[in-house]
Amino acid sequence: MERPFVFINAAMSADGKISSFHREQVRISGPEDMDRVSLLRAGSDAVMVGVGTVLADDPGLRIKSADHKKMRSDRGQSNQPLRVVVDSRARTPPGSEVLGEGSILAVSEAAPEERLAFLREKCEIVVSGEEKVDLGELLSILKKKGVERLMVEGGATLNWSLIEAGLVDEISVYIGPMIIGGEGAPTLVDGPGFSADYPKLSLISADLLDGGVLLRWRVLR
Amino acid sequence: MERPFVFINAAMSADGKISSFHREQVRISGPEDMDRVSLLRAGSDAVMVGVGTVLADDPGLRIKSADHKKMRSDRGQSNQPLRVVVDSRARTPPGSEVLGEGSILAVSEAAPEERLAFLREKCEIVVSGEEKVDLGELLSILKKKGVERLMVEGGATLNWSLIEAGLVDEISVYIGPMIIGGEGAPTLVDGPGFSADYPKLSLISADLLDGGVLLRWRVLR
Ligand SMILES: NC(=O)c1ccc[n+]([C@@H]2O[C@H](COP(=O)([O-])OP(=O)(O)OC[C@H]3O[C@@H](n4cnc5c(N)ncnc54)[C@H](OP(=O)(O)O)[C@@H]3O)[C@@H](O)[C@H]2O)c1
Ligand SMILES: NC(=O)c1ccc[n+]([C@@H]2O[C@H](COP(=O)([O-])OP(=O)(O)OC[C@H]3O[C@@H](n4cnc5c(N)ncnc54)[C@H](OP(=O)(O)O)[C@@H]3O)[C@@H](O)[C@H]2O)c1
Repeated sequence: MERPFVFINAAMSADGKISSFHREQVRISGPEDMDRVSLLRAGSDAVMVGVGTVLADDPGLRIKSADHKKMRSDRGQSNQPLRVVVDSRARTPPGSEVLGEGSILAVSEAAPEERLAFLREKCEIVVSGEEKVDLGELLSILKKKGVERLMVEGGATLNWSLIEAGLVDEISVYIGPMIIGGEGAPTLVDGPGFSADYPKLSLISADLLDGGVLLRWRVLR
Repeated sequence: MERPFVFINAAMSADGKISSFHREQVRISGPEDMDRVSLLRAGSDAVMVGVGTVLADDPGLRIKSADHKKMRSDRGQSNQPLRVVVDSRARTPPGSEVLGEGSILAVSEAAPEERLAFLREKCEIVVSGEEKVDLGELLSILKKKGVERLMVEGGATLNWSLIEAGLVDEISVYIGPMIIGGEGAPTLVDGPGFSADYPKLSLISADLLDGGVLLRWRVLR
C-alpha cells in the first residue's frame, strides 16, 4: 500500500524519557528547538498524535509563527497541516484543542457511535481496523487525501506501533540537558519492545541546540 | 563526606534503553566504543555495578587490552581497577565473574551471614546502611581506600540512586543506531524517577562513534 513519507519528531531527556512518570508535559527543549518543530510542521501535510498524548497534554498542534504560515501560503498550501489523532475508541474529549477545522479522528470499528455523534461536528472521522486503528490502512487513506509528508509527534505507544509495523522513515529526536528517570516514565519508544531483530538506524545528522543535541536517524529496512 | 570523582558510563539505544525487556545484555556499541570503555576503566581506580547487572550479565569488568594494562603499570598502578558490586543482601552468586582478587562486595547490615561466609573467600566485604547499601557512606569508604576516580557501569537502578543522591559528576553515554523499545526495558536511569526539580546537565562533548553518538554530560548542582 502506498503511504506518505513518515517521520517521528520528539524531545527526550538525556535518559530517553519524553515525560515524567506522572505523564504530564515536561519542558525538555528550548526556544531554538520549538522553532525547529514549528518549521517541521510547516513542511508537513499532516501531523499525528496518539490519543494518550491528547489526554495527557491537550496539544493544539498548530503553527503559531506568522512566517511559517506565510511559507505555506506562498506554496499554495493551507495555513495549517491536517491534524490526525489515532484513537480507536474515540476517547478524545470533544473540547480538545486538537479538534476543529482541519482535524481528523482516526478510529476503529469499535468506536461507540454515541461518542462519534458528538465528535463528528468537530472533526472528520476516518475508520480503519476492527479493535485498534489499522495504521497501515490509515496511512494509505491519508496518502489518498494528498498527505505526502506526515509528522508524528508521539507519544511513546504510537511511536512503537508505527516502528514495529515498519511505517517510519526517519526519527528526529532532540536530547535535552536533563535527567527525568523513572521505570514508569514514557520513553521515545514504549509498547512491548523488541527482543531480537532490533530496527537499525543510520545517523543523518547530529547538531548542538539549546544546550542539548538534535539527532536525526534514518530507519533502515 | 569526601568522595571520589564519580562518572556513569553506559551504552543506550536511540530510544534510551540499556537492554531489552528480557534484561539480557544487548550489543549496542561497536569496537570503537568498547575500546573507549576499556580506556575509561584503565583511567579509573575502581569500577562499580549494581547486583542487578551482575545477575543479568555476569560481567567481568576487567581490562583486556595489554596496552591499557601497561598504561596502568607505567603509572605505578595495579593492572586492574578495583571492582565494586552494590548488593545489599549479598545476592551475588559466588561463581560470578566479577569476584576474585581486587573485588569488593558492598552490602548492608541486612546481608545474611551465611551468604557472606561463602563470599568472603572471593572478595572483600564492605558494610554500610541498614537495609540498603548507603551509597554516600560507601563512596567515602572507597575514597579512604584511595579511590579518587570511580566509574559506574550501571545498571538503571544504581544509576538512579546515585543521581538522586547527588553523587554523580559526569555521565558518558554512547547512543547506538538501533531501537529497542519496551515499557519494561531498563533505561539509562530508572528508579521511581523525578517529577520536579529535574537534575540539569551541561554538555561537555558530542562525538560520532561506531555509527552512533557519544555524549558527555556534566551533572549540575
Ligand atoms: N516529549 C515529547 O516529544 C512528547 C511528544 C508526545 C507525547 N509525549 C508524552 O507521551 C505520553 C503519551 O504517550 P502514550 O504512549 O501514553 O500515548 P500515545 O502514544 O500518544 O497514544 C497511544 C494510544 O493511541 C491509541 N492507538 C490506537 N490505535 C493504535 C495503534 N494501532 N497503535 C498504537 N496506539 C494506538 C491507543 O489507545 P486506544 O486503544 O484507546 O486507541 C493508545 O493507547 C505523555 O506523557 C506525553 O506527555 C511526549
Ligand atoms: N548498556 C549498558 O551500558 C548497561 C550497563 C549495565 C547494565 N545494563 C543492563 O541493566 C540491567 C540491570 O539494571 P538493574 O536496574 O536491574 O540493576 P542494577 O542497577 O545493576 O542493580 C540494582 C540493584 O542494586 C542493589 N542496590 C543496593 N543498594 C542500592 C542502592 N542504594 N541504590 C540502588 N540499588 C542498590 C539493589 O538490589 P539489593 O536491594 O538486593 O541490593 C538493586 O536492585 C540489565 O538488563 C543489564 O543488561 C546495561
